[in-house]
Amino acid sequence: MKAPDFLASHASHVEAALSSMLKTRQCVVADVLLDAMSYSLLAGGKRVRPGLLLESYRACGGNEVQRVMPAALAIECIHTYSLIHDDLPCMDDDDLRRGNPTCHKKFDEATAILAADALQALAFELVADMDVDSDLRCKLLHSLALASGCQGMVGGQVLDMQAEHDAASGKHVELLQVERIHLHKTGALLHWCCEAGALLAAADEKQLDACSRYGKAVGLLFQVADDILDVTASSDVLGKSAGKDAEQLKATYVSILGLQRSRELADEMRDIALDACQPLGDEGVQLKALAHYILERGQ
Amino acid sequence: MKAPDFLASHASHVEAALSSMLKTRQCVVADVLLDAMSYSLLAGGKRVRPGLLLESYRACGGNEVQRVMPAALAIECIHTYSLIHDDLPCMDDDDLRRGNPTCHKKFDEATAILAADALQALAFELVADMDVDSDLRCKLLHSLALASGCQGMVGGQVLDMQAEHDAASGKHVELLQVERIHLHKTGALLHWCCEAGALLAAADEKQLDACSRYGKAVGLLFQVADDILDVTASSDVLGKSAGKDAEQLKATYVSILGLQRSRELADEMRDIALDACQPLGDEGVQLKALAHYILERGQ
Repeated sequence: MKAPDFLASHASHVEAALSSMLKTRQCVVADVLLDAMSYSLLAGGKRVRPGLLLESYRACGGNEVQRVMPAALAIECIHTYSLIHDDLPCMDDDDLRRGNPTCHKKFDEATAILAADALQALAFELVADMDVDSDLRCKLLHSLALASGCQGMVGGQVLDMQAEHDAASGKHVELLQVERIHLHKTGALLHWCCEAGALLAAADEKQLDACSRYGKAVGLLFQVADDILDVTASSDVLGKSAGKDAEQLKATYVSILGLQRSRELADEMRDIALDACQPLGDEGVQLKALAHYILERGQ
Repeated sequence: MKAPDFLASHASHVEAALSSMLKTRQCVVADVLLDAMSYSLLAGGKRVRPGLLLESYRACGGNEVQRVMPAALAIECIHTYSLIHDDLPCMDDDDLRRGNPTCHKKFDEATAILAADALQALAFELVADMDVDSDLRCKLLHSLALASGCQGMVGGQVLDMQAEHDAASGKHVELLQVERIHLHKTGALLHWCCEAGALLAAADEKQLDACSRYGKAVGLLFQVADDILDVTASSDVLGKSAGKDAEQLKATYVSILGLQRSRELADEMRDIALDACQPLGDEGVQLKALAHYILERGQ
């Protein structure tokens, strides 16, 4: 399934904003560091996270895209740093990412680790410097730190590693465990995007609640679809080695529930996401399309 | 030289606050992650950075230590995360830190990398959640991100790696290059501590300028003293392998200037730091003592 036009449009604004943001940092102390950060940050991708933030913002009535763009770039910085560390030899040991050499293959391990560290700092720098009310900035910075740290994404990554060890030692991994991994590993940031978009648009309670529920459903949907994609798509489509999850004994929805039941679960999650959009009325149409797309890219 | 009593007193408050802060995060998703974060965060040390922040705060008339404590913990989280990544096999490859196994030796590389990532997020979480005016919080978060990211500490680490490569390939490393490394690698955070302490105390312009100048001088003093310590102290005193800089072909003040000239440079930096304290009057006495201590622990 082709990405919806509005997602591609958000993505092209995000690409342009990322490039110009990186240019303003060329006075940076070490060129190779900025090169490595840019290499990974500008490696393409559908920019789903910034798209969710910008579209939630728009759906709640926001119309100053350039003003909220730094938050969209920040989430991409966090996501990119996590991919760089994830790809390292001591973690997933991946040589390819979106069809290109991973950061530590293109540069070296030390540079990759430091580029990721700098991207994390850059995310907080971008939000702290936004042209929005300082109370709101603090709120976003606080929730971004929670969503990306030990109680969010990083916590989920450790759970994921533990489940892999469990699976490797023949221990059965439960569905609840897999859900807990993804609620943290991918769900927390995806949820942050939707909530942050609503907050930046000064959404009313009804809109905020809608975006928050939508974000939670999409968070799980995204991962179920990803797991399905890993077993149904070719390496060409993925831009990385297909079947890698099974090879690494990753506990996935598919490995636990089977393909058929995983597809049913994904449909349920999509329906929850669609339902959450109802209070947004006509403005929620594109978020609905995004939920369809997130699911169907994986089938 | 023994640490001044007031530094030990700040350190004991910091230790207690770190412990209780970590306890409130025990609902964290993965125990081993919190264990690894705590292991490195509570590994002792003189807590010079929190000490600088708390003492700058006090010297500028601040008297609500518990209110500013999260900023002191935050700087220790940033410092600790940088040490964990620095110690990794692909970086300095250190097995010992303060006489104990480094984080990746005690746990494993993947856990160490993620614990450090979570500590960086925790630093921003702590400041974002402080009970101080949100404008000030944003200002501190922004300057902390700058001081720790590609234009600060991480930038300096990359410069350091480059100088090592230069030295290994027989290229002469200049004094200016070494200064540039340390202005970023250690100086930026030390400077942040002093400036943040002053800002949190609502310092007037004269006090803020004094703390800022003091922080810059102490930033360099700290590193010159460290380089001197590496060649003059035993491994016992260091809690890590002495002479490691020379072994790793690190470009240090001592390797470029020699021991005698490095000591003279350290004396000059100390004098600049002492002079910067003059506008603080009697309240600056302990910051002066801290400058003496930072230098003399290294001789």
